[in-house]
Amino acid sequence: MAAERRDAGEQPQGPVDQPERVGTHQRRVLEQIGRHWADTLGSRRAAVRTVPLDPGLGSYPEPPPPTRFGRVAPVQMFRAEAPDELMATEPAGAPETRTGLLVARLRRLVLGPPLRNSALLRERMRKLVAMPVLASDLLSSVAYGPESMLSVLILAGSAALRLSIPIAAGLIVLMITAGVSYRQTIPAYPQGAGAYNVAGDNLGGLAALVAAAGLMIDYVLTVAVSIASGLDAVTSVFPAVGGYTVPAGLAVILLLLAGNLRGVRQAGAAFAIPTYAFLIAIVLLLGGGLVQLAGRGFTVFTPPPAAAQESLGVLLALRAFTSGATSMTGIEAVSNAIPAFERVEWRNARTTLSWMVGVLVTMFAGLMALIHFDGIAPEQRQTVLSQLGHIVFGGGPLYDLLQAATALILLFAANTSYNDFPRLLFFMARSYDAPRVFLRLGDRLAFSNGIIALSVAAALIFGTFHGNTGNLIPLYAVGVFLAFTLSQSGMVVHWWRRRGSHWRKSMVVNGLGALLSALVLVTAAATKFTEGAWLVVIVIPCLVLLFRRIRHHYDVVRDNVALHPIPAQAARNAIIPARRFVLEQPPTAAGEEQEESPEELQHLAVVPMARLDLASLRALAYAASLSIPVMGAHISPSHEEAEEFREQWNTWGDHLHLEIIESPYRAIVAPLAHYLKALRAERPDVTLTVVVPEIIVKRHWQELLHSHTGDRLRRAVRHQPGIVVTTVPVHLPA
Amino acid sequence: MAAERRDAGEQPQGPVDQPERVGTHQRRVLEQIGRHWADTLGSRRAAVRTVPLDPGLGSYPEPPPPTRFGRVAPVQMFRAEAPDELMATEPAGAPETRTGLLVARLRRLVLGPPLRNSALLRERMRKLVAMPVLASDLLSSVAYGPESMLSVLILAGSAALRLSIPIAAGLIVLMITAGVSYRQTIPAYPQGAGAYNVAGDNLGGLAALVAAAGLMIDYVLTVAVSIASGLDAVTSVFPAVGGYTVPAGLAVILLLLAGNLRGVRQAGAAFAIPTYAFLIAIVLLLGGGLVQLAGRGFTVFTPPPAAAQESLGVLLALRAFTSGATSMTGIEAVSNAIPAFERVEWRNARTTLSWMVGVLVTMFAGLMALIHFDGIAPEQRQTVLSQLGHIVFGGGPLYDLLQAATALILLFAANTSYNDFPRLLFFMARSYDAPRVFLRLGDRLAFSNGIIALSVAAALIFGTFHGNTGNLIPLYAVGVFLAFTLSQSGMVVHWWRRRGSHWRKSMVVNGLGALLSALVLVTAAATKFTEGAWLVVIVIPCLVLLFRRIRHHYDVVRDNVALHPIPAQAARNAIIPARRFVLEQPPTAAGEEQEESPEELQHLAVVPMARLDLASLRALAYAASLSIPVMGAHISPSHEEAEEFREQWNTWGDHLHLEIIESPYRAIVAPLAHYLKALRAERPDVTLTVVVPEIIVKRHWQELLHSHTGDRLRRAVRHQPGIVVTTVPVHLPA
Repeated sequence: MAAERRDAGEQPQGPVDQPERVGTHQRRVLEQIGRHWADTLGSRRAAVRTVPLDPGLGSYPEPPPPTRFGRVAPVQMFRAEAPDELMATEPAGAPETRTGLLVARLRRLVLGPPLRNSALLRERMRKLVAMPVLASDLLSSVAYGPESMLSVLILAGSAALRLSIPIAAGLIVLMITAGVSYRQTIPAYPQGAGAYNVAGDNLGGLAALVAAAGLMIDYVLTVAVSIASGLDAVTSVFPAVGGYTVPAGLAVILLLLAGNLRGVRQAGAAFAIPTYAFLIAIVLLLGGGLVQLAGRGFTVFTPPPAAAQESLGVLLALRAFTSGATSMTGIEAVSNAIPAFERVEWRNARTTLSWMVGVLVTMFAGLMALIHFDGIAPEQRQTVLSQLGHIVFGGGPLYDLLQAATALILLFAANTSYNDFPRLLFFMARSYDAPRVFLRLGDRLAFSNGIIALSVAAALIFGTFHGNTGNLIPLYAVGVFLAFTLSQSGMVVHWWRRRGSHWRKSMVVNGLGALLSALVLVTAAATKFTEGAWLVVIVIPCLVLLFRRIRHHYDVVRDNVALHPIPAQAARNAIIPARRFVLEQPPTAAGEEQEESPEELQHLAVVPMARLDLASLRALAYAASLSIPVMGAHISPSHEEAEEFREQWNTWGDHLHLEIIESPYRAIVAPLAHYLKALRAERPDVTLTVVVPEIIVKRHWQELLHSHTGDRLRRAVRHQPGIVVTTVPVHLPA
Repeated sequence: MAAERRDAGEQPQGPVDQPERVGTHQRRVLEQIGRHWADTLGSRRAAVRTVPLDPGLGSYPEPPPPTRFGRVAPVQMFRAEAPDELMATEPAGAPETRTGLLVARLRRLVLGPPLRNSALLRERMRKLVAMPVLASDLLSSVAYGPESMLSVLILAGSAALRLSIPIAAGLIVLMITAGVSYRQTIPAYPQGAGAYNVAGDNLGGLAALVAAAGLMIDYVLTVAVSIASGLDAVTSVFPAVGGYTVPAGLAVILLLLAGNLRGVRQAGAAFAIPTYAFLIAIVLLLGGGLVQLAGRGFTVFTPPPAAAQESLGVLLALRAFTSGATSMTGIEAVSNAIPAFERVEWRNARTTLSWMVGVLVTMFAGLMALIHFDGIAPEQRQTVLSQLGHIVFGGGPLYDLLQAATALILLFAANTSYNDFPRLLFFMARSYDAPRVFLRLGDRLAFSNGIIALSVAAALIFGTFHGNTGNLIPLYAVGVFLAFTLSQSGMVVHWWRRRGSHWRKSMVVNGLGALLSALVLVTAAATKFTEGAWLVVIVIPCLVLLFRRIRHHYDVVRDNVALHPIPAQAARNAIIPARRFVLEQPPTAAGEEQEESPEELQHLAVVPMARLDLASLRALAYAASLSIPVMGAHISPSHEEAEEFREQWNTWGDHLHLEIIESPYRAIVAPLAHYLKALRAERPDVTLTVVVPEIIVKRHWQELLHSHTGDRLRRAVRHQPGIVVTTVPVHLPA
């Protein structure tokens, strides 16, 4: 069991919010507090401990009586697992309200039935499935990378296109360097070699946050760019589609959302087809092109003439280089996803990475060569890939296959981000850098919240930029290469610290990767600043700031719910009793004595009432049955109403103290809240329990007909220390 | 005091939600319940009654310690009024959160400081103020009524315009009949003679609801039509304004909203000017026109030729008549507003009504005559009134005065609805036909909620119909004449029932009014059905249905919070104790024994915990200090986490029973809710108190970082009987 546990723990999709093992200090504090409880409970222990029913539900073997959902056959919701331990069955997770049930059923229809924790291990990927799932992003990049590069060069006229060959060579060097660097990273971080983990481990928390911000932007843009470019491929064949880019793109995002909420494996199987189809199409294209070239003796065609709008300089060449560098986005996907591979995870991951980089370099080099020999220039009407297809295949079914496969792989490439983005958020949430909700595994063992967040962000970006690839590309490189740089730099530090075997060679490889990435990063940020990169340059620090504030908040929470030792007996007796049992300590008193023990808590129940009806009497009865002092409070807009109420109170018998507060300005909740605060100011050692009767309606619209004084009062006093709000429900028949 | 009280009660703007005097039966039941309490509290009475602090805040003379709003000078919030009675001062109504304070200050800036209940009587209207406030709607109707009539006639060519004289004569008869009818209604219903009250009193609840629905539509349309028509007057002078009708209209609605939220009297004084200006302008117009006519020997000019689009038939004439009938909308304003007059209310109101009808008939007749003699036909570019102004005044300052006064009176005419609509809703809410929120007097003694509701509805209608007068007019007549008809029919029944002095004459007058109104109603609904009246014909029954459902709901609430006598002692002893103290009775057991008395309520506190931290320990300590049985409940997603928690629990000392529920599907709230339900099913006589620790954050955004299990649990169990939810706050420092 323990071994299985450790294995499960190694993989990031492990169960939600793992219990952080309590440290020895906290454990000792807990023990001390426990002893104090034993002292103070004393003879009352038995009374408090004796539960008036069987909490194991043993005496509840018959099905429960029919509820108002009597149609639903009663089912066993809990199973005894051990003494004092029950196991909830699937039906126990179903909501109870009619709307809730409907939503749950719809959800089940779309997403499938919930999966048990034990189904987790089955959700891992074989290499042949992992390859297309993770490679679609990387490989599909060749559909827009070369085109982006050419689109920059053509600004200096068609003659500038000849620069594409040296730039492509540079990019290939960059790709291989990055591939080799990541190959080294994977075995070093088998539990997930994402830039966030690697940078955090070696360069510190801030670097991790910067890397995370870069990656998050990268993932969102991957979705947007891939979908935009995929729709470009469709538009090349059917120009009419061009008018519906935005709705079509949003529909695809919705599809990805649903598919990923269902869980990764089903998604993987479905996504294998387009990736392999794309591979085949490109292989056919390159092969066919090679045959054509050989047939005509490798003559170079000149591209159609185009007027120069800018002069050809170093700046333009650098811009073209960074645009072309988008061909290698997605290379980091494998290292993030290591734990999703089959055993041995890191070895399978590394092999997959090598395959992928090899295929990428081949495809990129081949395509660039074809483009060069065929003299292709980018045009508005159709993509470069479509032009190549026309030249090599004519217009036949092979051209259609090429375009269809391109569109599909691009549309599905967005899916890589649906694996990585939620996983990154999981890692961040585990380190308290992101909201803890991203730790939660959904019904289907997918990180639903991360998947939803990504969809929303991608849809916003896609809509804002009207689904135009050209607008999105300038935003793209900065985030990616920021993460690359930090990750590779982290690895340099890693090797330096370990200095294991071959550490020098490893350090040089990663150092080279870091250097090249940093160069691309700086170039991209500088040369594309005005084209849109400024947005990313602003958003990244904002995100980092946000992460830090989140972390700070969780730190504050942790400090404030941590247990503190109770002072020694002597010291305790010296403390004025009045201060001892304050539910809330002022911040200055932190660490002085924050634990509660039940012995001497002073109570007063306050029951606010508008009139003396059944609801109020129930609240009074509830309060009085707790055997603590109880008082009624009535807020009256007028003296007459106050008199009327007092008369009723006396008719009832004046069993409890009644305080009437006249409110000539007709406010109800605020004066009551101030009154409670004033009572607390008088005796800060008394815990006030406000017992509010609450009418519970059956239909949502009926809530509009009630004033919800209870809810409003709860909100008004929630910031007051030492005020506990209790809601006594009064139910209406349907 | 009692006399003052009765006076205040007579006027509808009286204090909120007056205490409904409890009937003798309920009083006797209350007494019986009280005796039962005395029996069951027994010796515990003293303990429960002794409040551990001074609830009168007597020992709290010093200002409270500085809060986190330390800048705000401490103020006295409560004043002792009598023993056990405090008076809240204005500061006690202020919210405590920073955002709340900011909103309150902004509000005060726009609306002025809150007014005390005692300021209410000062908010009444003298006749000379009442006249413009209430008359603006009625008198301003001549700005669009004649024009609407002519716009229909012109469809049959310019020759058809000669029909305007007989139609106008018919309308004058209708106006006078309605005026006389209402004169009779006012003294009969001095507390408010609106159609809702009169129809309800004489024809029954359904008729009242139908009348109310008609009136509500009328009021909303008055706002929309008046503003649209007022903007037409502006556009006649400045055609450029035509492009901004919708934003300009919405801005006016916003202005009316703010003005009316400040309170009726300030509004009245401001609104006197345009009404009197309009009166003067029309008098000058009529006088000038008469002089001109006399000068030229009363020759009749022929209108410019226009081609007939429809044939002149009875149907067209009837449509023209119902369109012209919009000239008398607003005649019911006075009878609704009787209580807002100075003493003697009904007499002042009746006098005001007579003046108003007299002025209306004079203006209408004069304008129709001028239109006829000057041969004016409606045109797109400028209003009929503007054409008359050009003819009589030329283009000088008098013409400008006419247009400005017309625009202003129309824009402010909308204000009549701001008096009537909230007042109608108040009456309805008092009879439980509308949500009780409409009873509430705002800070400034205005019915804020009704004012806001009207503004929203009017803005929606105005926007939907693009602020076009011609589109709105067809919707208008149905609602108005529906209310007229029901009100007058009600008066017929009234006179028949009373048969006091002159009852025959009174009955004939109101009968004639009812007959004519009904004729107009049927004609309007039939002839304008396709032009938009269908919308009203659909909305009215929908509203009536809604009112009935609201009423039904309040009836259910009343039945369910009414007190029921406790069965005789003998009968009670026979009841199985287990059933006696169920907090919630199944609906079938209604009336059997619903009151609570505190004697034997069986308690069990359940403290759900995610981990054993300070927050959980506080919740446990709170529960244990109540001296009722307490158990901890921990929901675990995995067996390992469960084991870890149990170990901590044992370290602490296992002072209370712990139940662990393993939830392999990772749901937290739903299994917990089902578990609580299962406990209740086991022992329905045990009241479960769920004590949830709740972390209270300082900033709103931080709420996103917490899972709010407490809130979600509260929602999940709120429909379960016998489960009380208690929130123990744990506050974080800023």
